[in-house]
Parts: sequence; C-alpha cells; structure tokens
Amino acid sequence: MEFQDVVRKRKMVRSFEDRPIPRDIVDRLLANAQRAPSAGFSQGWAFLALEGPEQTARYWDALWPPERRARFGWDDMFKAPLLVVCLSNKSQYVARYAEPDKNWTDRDEKRWPVPYWDIDTGMAALLVLLTAVDAGLGAVFFGVPDQAKFRATFGVPDELTAIGTIAIGYAKPHDRPSPSLKRGHRPAEQVIHKGNW
Amino acid sequence: MEFQDVVRKRKMVRSFEDRPIPRDIVDRLLANAQRAPSAGFSQGWAFLALEGPEQTARYWDALWPPERRARFGWDDMFKAPLLVVCLSNKSQYVARYAEPDKNWTDRDEKRWPVPYWDIDTGMAALLVLLTAVDAGLGAVFFGVPDQAKFRATFGVPDELTAIGTIAIGYAKPHDRPSPSLKRGHRPAEQVIHKGNW
Repeated sequence: MEFQDVVRKRKMVRSFEDRPIPRDIVDRLLANAQRAPSAGFSQGWAFLALEGPEQTARYWDALWPPERRARFGWDDMFKAPLLVVCLSNKSQYVARYAEPDKNWTDRDEKRWPVPYWDIDTGMAALLVLLTAVDAGLGAVFFGVPDQAKFRATFGVPDELTAIGTIAIGYAKPHDRPSPSLKRGHRPAEQVIHKGNW
Repeated sequence: MEFQDVVRKRKMVRSFEDRPIPRDIVDRLLANAQRAPSAGFSQGWAFLALEGPEQTARYWDALWPPERRARFGWDDMFKAPLLVVCLSNKSQYVARYAEPDKNWTDRDEKRWPVPYWDIDTGMAALLVLLTAVDAGLGAVFFGVPDQAKFRATFGVPDELTAIGTIAIGYAKPHDRPSPSLKRGHRPAEQVIHKGNW
C-alpha cells in the first residue's frame, strides 16, 4: 500500500475476527518493529508475541479480569489472534551510553532529558500498527497497568517495562470507534508553531 | 512510495543540501505528525517548525555552540532547511485523564506506568521521519540536552518538553553513517520472545 494511504487509514480497531494471521505477515510485523530507530542504536527493546487462543487467553485472564472485560465495551477485542507486548529496557540504554564513544560512565539517569527507552519502543510499536494497516489488518494499542502481574505471568525480567500491548487481527466490518475521538483533532494552530512559540 | 519501501529505506541522514523543501511537503510532514495515535486522544504534543537559514541558525547558535559543532563530524547537518522540534505536554494528558470518562481526578502521576506524553510524541516524530523518506528527503532525529536554553530561546512554556529535534532536507549523495550502526542489529532471538519469556 502507498505510505500516505497507510498513514491516512491507521486507526485503532477493537473488534476482530478469530481467524489466524498468516505466518509471513506475523513475521513482517515483528521484523518491522526491529526497524525502529534508537538512541545510540541501543535497541533496548523486546517484544513478546502471543499467538492463538491459548497464549492470548493467558494474557487476558491475568491482566483483564472478567469485570474489566465486561465493562470494556468491545467484546471482540479478546478474539484477536495475535498480541504483541512492547517492552522497553532502560538498563540497555544506560549501559550503551557508558561505552567509550558516549562516555556517560557515571550512568547517571539525570543525563537523559527524556526516556528514549520508552520513546524508541513506542516508535517500534507504531511501526507494528502501521504494518498491520499495510497488511490489511486492524490493530489497537493499550497500556499495561499492572506491570508486576504481567512480568510474573510471562516470566519477564524486572528490568523490562511493558509500554503497551498491541492486539492485531482481521477487523470485523463494524467496529465501534472510541468515544475519545469525539474530542476531535486539536486545531493545527494550537499544535504547530512556526519560527517561535 | 510503497509503505514497506519507506520502512526499509528509513535511516538517519546527517548531510543536507541547502535547497529549501517545497511548501506542500513541509505541510505534509507537519500534518502527518498530527496523525499519531495518543492515549485518550489527548494529543498532548506540539511542534516548533524552523524554516530557512535565519530560523534554523537561531536553533544551532543557541543549542550547538561552536565546539559542539566542530567535534560533531557532519558539517552539512547544519545546512538542513527545516527543523521540527517535537514537544510533549504531560499536563494535557493528566488533565485529559481527569475527565469523567477516565476519572483519574486525583491527577496522580503514579497512575501512569509509562510516560505516554513522551511515547506518543515519539510516534509523531517517527511519522515525520517516515514521511521524509516518502517525500524523497533525508532526516535525522536528535536530543535536546539543554531544555531550559531551548525554552528560553523560543519562548516555549515550561510545561512542554522537547523530546527531540528532526533536521530535514535533501540528502547529499555521500552521507557518512553513524558509527553506532557498526554495533549491528541485535539478534532477533534476543529481541523476540514467543509465548513466554
């Protein structure tokens, strides 16, 4: 698909058919995640892919208890055949920048004006979301409030933080958009500043 | 350009010709930034666009003193006809999530497992980087270590944080790649985990 069409069509989709995603598309989704840029080429990220009803149910059962699911409002999100949990690893950035060419040997986190581990992993997540559109799929990105429960469920080391999970699948024809979209886009004149604030 | 070609061709470019970017391309770069997803559709971001030698020189003179420029190693980065500073605004997210549908009325930042203001703004930055490739341009994303100096130079309110600046322009034919790339991609088996860690 043309790049601009992918950007134009991207939106969060929360209603999926339960049919599986072909292997080559799953592989491309995960390969493109690894093409995100990263500060110092640190690549301090990881991706946990959960495929099929058994693996995805472990996620939903641990992190979306029945009452959360019941009040969510999109029952067909839980049919997604693929979940990709996007994880950031601050320690890999701090270690990378302690190397001689960067030389932040004190490993002082105050040197970092913003958390590039989370930002770069977010860029990787966006590549997954865009690739889903390119492949004719729908996808939605959502947060992981209970990091400890998530780590315990899947044996993930403490140094990793789940910045969000992407549910991916073939979209049902009638997905209800998020009510948040009624807020509308912020006017460009509030968002874009030219030459000076 | 095909989406997958854009993803494949994206890389940081640090050597630019000094010719300007056509208006419609500048407009599309900034329009696509605003198409990033955001938590609760908060859109807590802003973009400062600096165009032409006078505006971009204000940035370099304030934030890249001569000694930093001299040791940088890519003299032609400073010829970029366009800079886009990507700014995140945490306060807009906290205010958005205090609304009735989210109901985090205590505005407690500990509710946020990760800083979506920075992550979403990073996704917007990636859309600019990808759009540059689609438009036949080169671009590079770099950090803003001195936030106070940046804010003072351009009159930016304290609640905004520059997560990074993108220099954009027509790439010179022979750009030197970053030495960081010699590290190579991390092996996929370290990055991708299937079913469990």
